[in-house]
Amino acid sequence: KVLWTVLVTMLGYSSSLPVGEDALCTAEELAKYRIIFTGKWSQTAFPKQYPLYRPPAQWSSLLGVTHSSDYSMWKKNEYASNGVRDFAEKGEAWALMKEIEEAGEKIQSVHGIFSAPAISSGTGQTSTELEVHPRHPLVSFVVRIVPSPDWFVGIDSLNLCEGDHWMDEVSVDLFPYDAGTDSGFTFSSPNFATIPQDTVTEITCSSPSHPANSFYYPKLKILPPIAQVTMVKIKKSQLGLSAPFINLPAKSNEIIDTVS
Amino acid sequence: KVLWTVLVTMLGYSSSLPVGEDALCTAEELAKYRIIFTGKWSQTAFPKQYPLYRPPAQWSSLLGVTHSSDYSMWKKNEYASNGVRDFAEKGEAWALMKEIEEAGEKIQSVHGIFSAPAISSGTGQTSTELEVHPRHPLVSFVVRIVPSPDWFVGIDSLNLCEGDHWMDEVSVDLFPYDAGTDSGFTFSSPNFATIPQDTVTEITCSSPSHPANSFYYPKLKILPPIAQVTMVKIKKSQLGLSAPFINLPAKSNEIIDTVS
Repeated sequence: KVLWTVLVTMLGYSSSLPVGEDALCTAEELAKYRIIFTGKWSQTAFPKQYPLYRPPAQWSSLLGVTHSSDYSMWKKNEYASNGVRDFAEKGEAWALMKEIEEAGEKIQSVHGIFSAPAISSGTGQTSTELEVHPRHPLVSFVVRIVPSPDWFVGIDSLNLCEGDHWMDEVSVDLFPYDAGTDSGFTFSSPNFATIPQDTVTEITCSSPSHPANSFYYPKLKILPPIAQVTMVKIKKSQLGLSAPFINLPAKSNEIIDTVS
Repeated sequence: KVLWTVLVTMLGYSSSLPVGEDALCTAEELAKYRIIFTGKWSQTAFPKQYPLYRPPAQWSSLLGVTHSSDYSMWKKNEYASNGVRDFAEKGEAWALMKEIEEAGEKIQSVHGIFSAPAISSGTGQTSTELEVHPRHPLVSFVVRIVPSPDWFVGIDSLNLCEGDHWMDEVSVDLFPYDAGTDSGFTFSSPNFATIPQDTVTEITCSSPSHPANSFYYPKLKILPPIAQVTMVKIKKSQLGLSAPFINLPAKSNEIIDTVS
C-alpha cells in the first residue's frame, strides 16, 4: 500500500516539484473545511494584568492561507515578514495579504486566502471556510492578541492531507507567540520597536523570564491554552452548490464558560 | 429579447419561486468577485471629534452574504436584527453569522458568507472574495465604524446580475448608518440602549439635527463618502483552480491620500 502510494505520487507529479512533505498528498480533488477559532483568554485562566478596558481583551480578525511547503506565513525561531509584523503589531492585514498574493503569483505556492471576523472579547468564537488542494494541503493563519505589543496565536503549515485522504477533523490548542518586532513586556506596553528585529518566539509561563511579563506565572508548569482551533471537513452538497456552512455551535458562551 | 429572457426565466425556475427581482437573473453558472472595501474616514474629511486614540478611528471586520430576495441582512427604515445589533454595537459577528446560517438552512435564501479583515485606521483597504449564483445574485454586508455607539456602513441587497450576465465591476460610495439600538450622539458616547429600539437610519450632515452629533456639519449639503466598495468580477482560471486573487492595489495609502 505504501509503495503503491509513493508510486502514484511520483507518476502524478512532475519531477520538477520539490520533494516536500506536501508532495506526498495523493488525495483526490479539493477538500473544504469549516475552521472554528475559539478564544479562551478569560480573566479566570489569565488573571495577571487581564485587559478590562480601552481596549478590553479581544482577538483581531483571523487571516489565513492554504499553501504548499514552498510558502511559509510565519515560523517559530525565524524572522517575521513585514506583513506578519504589521498584522501582529496593529492588526493591519493589507501587507500580509499582498505577500500571500505575490507568493501565489510568483511561485504558485498558495491556493487561497481566508479570513474570519474579529472577536470582541477574550472568550468567544469566529468561523469561516477554507479550501485545500492536493498540491496545497497546508494551512497557516494568524490572529493578533489585542491589546498586546506584537503577540499573536496561529498555526504554521498544518497538513490536512494524510496520504491519500483528507483528515475529517483536527483540533489544536494555541499558545501565545511574540513576533519579535516590538519590545513590550505587557499587554498595554507602549510601542517600542525591537532593533534589530528578533525572531518569532513562543511566550511561556517562564519566558521571557521577567516578573513584568504578562504571561509570567512562575507557579505554573505550562500556560493553559489561550485559544483553540478546530477544522472540520465539510460534507459535500450540504447547502446548494457551494456548501458554505456547517452547523455553528448554538451558543458560544456555553462553550466558553467551561474554560477554567 | 426581453420576452425571450422572461420566458427562459419562467421555464428555468419552478413556479413556487417568489416573483422577486432575483428571479429575473438568467446568467449562467456562478460568478466570483473580488470585493475591495476602502475606508475614507480621514481627519481631513471628517474633522469633527475625529477619534485619535483609545481607540483611534478604524473599521471592524467586514461581514457579508450573497443571497436571494427572501433574505435581508439589514434595511434602511426597518428594525435591525439582534445579529446586526451585536455587530454594529460591538463588532461581535457570531449572532449575525448564526442568523445567516439559519436563513440558508431554513429557506435556502443564502448562497454564501464572506468576511474580510478589519482595518486598523480610518483610511485603508481590505479585501476578500465572494461568489454569487443566479438564484442568489444579491450582495449585502456590514462594517462597523469604530469607535461609535452603533454606527456602520454597508450594502443592502445589491444585485450583481443584469438579466443574462454578471456585471464586470460595481463601485458604490458608502455613508454612515445608525442601527437604532444605542442612543449615542458621538463616536465615543457611552453605551445606552435605545428602548424601544429605533429603525436603521442614515446619518447625514443635518440628521440627527443636533450640534453634538459627530457627523453634524451644518455648512455641508451632503457628507463626503466615508467609505467605498468595489466589486470586480474575477476572470476564470487566474491562479490554479480556485482563482482566489486578483491584483490587490500596490499601495493602499496612495489611494487613500487622494481623499480630500
